[in-house]
Amino acid sequence: MRTLTEHIFFETSQRRELINITARVADFVAKSRVQEGFCLVSAMHITAGIWVNDEEPGIKADLMELLERLAPVGDYRHHRTGEDNGDAHLKRTLLGHQATLPVTKGRLDLGPWEQIFYAEFDGRRRKRVVLKIIGE
Amino acid sequence: MRTLTEHIFFETSQRRELINITARVADFVAKSRVQEGFCLVSAMHITAGIWVNDEEPGIKADLMELLERLAPVGDYRHHRTGEDNGDAHLKRTLLGHQATLPVTKGRLDLGPWEQIFYAEFDGRRRKRVVLKIIGE
Amino acid sequence: MRTLTEHIFFETSQRRELINITARVADFVAKSRVQEGFCLVSAMHITAGIWVNDEEPGIKADLMELLERLAPVGDYRHHRTGEDNGDAHLKRTLLGHQATLPVTKGRLDLGPWEQIFYAEFDGRRRKRVVLKIIGE
Repeated sequence: MRTLTEHIFFETSQRRELINITARVADFVAKSRVQEGFCLVSAMHITAGIWVNDEEPGIKADLMELLERLAPVGDYRHHRTGEDNGDAHLKRTLLGHQATLPVTKGRLDLGPWEQIFYAEFDGRRRKRVVLKIIGE
Repeated sequence: MRTLTEHIFFETSQRRELINITARVADFVAKSRVQEGFCLVSAMHITAGIWVNDEEPGIKADLMELLERLAPVGDYRHHRTGEDNGDAHLKRTLLGHQATLPVTKGRLDLGPWEQIFYAEFDGRRRKRVVLKIIGE
Repeated sequence: MRTLTEHIFFETSQRRELINITARVADFVAKSRVQEGFCLVSAMHITAGIWVNDEEPGIKADLMELLERLAPVGDYRHHRTGEDNGDAHLKRTLLGHQATLPVTKGRLDLGPWEQIFYAEFDGRRRKRVVLKIIGE
């Protein structure tokens, strides 16, 4: 069995942002030399998620608007702790915080329009994503 | 390590549809001869998802109604590209697009009522799901 | 390859409850003696889910309130079967029913505040979660 693990870091300039990380994940897969396996991409901070969808500005704005409509910035019980990011915890939850990507013949086995995004909901500080691959 | 990968295809007659694929996934697991491992089921088109829940017509209709309520057919920024399926991208996102199924003693290790569904939100054309198993 | 599978059981005293299972999952990982791999945690009953987020009472209440707002207790088509838990099926769906946890150097590779929760939406009866690890 082959395995490789890396933590990659993000420090966004905006509070909410979608960052396409497909090329970084593909590079990681190549570096691992795994031919057949699974690559996990998981946001390690609880106010960020992972999205597998389209590199198209319109749908990216639509996603952010949907999440804002369902889990808006507002007054949450969580804020009694002094935090102000309750909405970010809930947005991560609705979006999902990880994806498992199939690796076939040494490459990400993605659909024609599938791109991998890091979804930041409480940025402007250093945050981490784990990439881990297992296979052979 | 054993591994097997297959792409299966769907072309639904309706735009939105839930298709129970449990038997197909079970056949794939048997064919792989993996005794202990993980089987990934992932929708490769970004307007379709995977649902693990109940083969009961009522709850299937309730799910579709929930997704229509939260991410309705409507006017999205994505449509400036000429597409009309913004809601389908968002429904896939809320539902989730993949499941990892444990395989134990050569069989899917599912709960008593867990069934696996392909969830189509923009059908009537040929679309793909990847099945991939790794284990021993 | 190493692999280990366990089913753990819950019988909550309340209908809806969040139970922190991080220590149980960590014990399972240690017992498996896997150094590098993936640990799947998946709710096997279709009215329960898995949440990876913060052990903080405020955000836990916020999550339950969000899910109640999006998929409220109410009158569902599913209830024609005699069931009364349609909302619980839908809450599981929006939350997600599983997580894949990276295991690195023999330990759960979680972010600083990531905790693993069993999310019960129709409790007061015996229900099951599968833990399965594969790796080396």
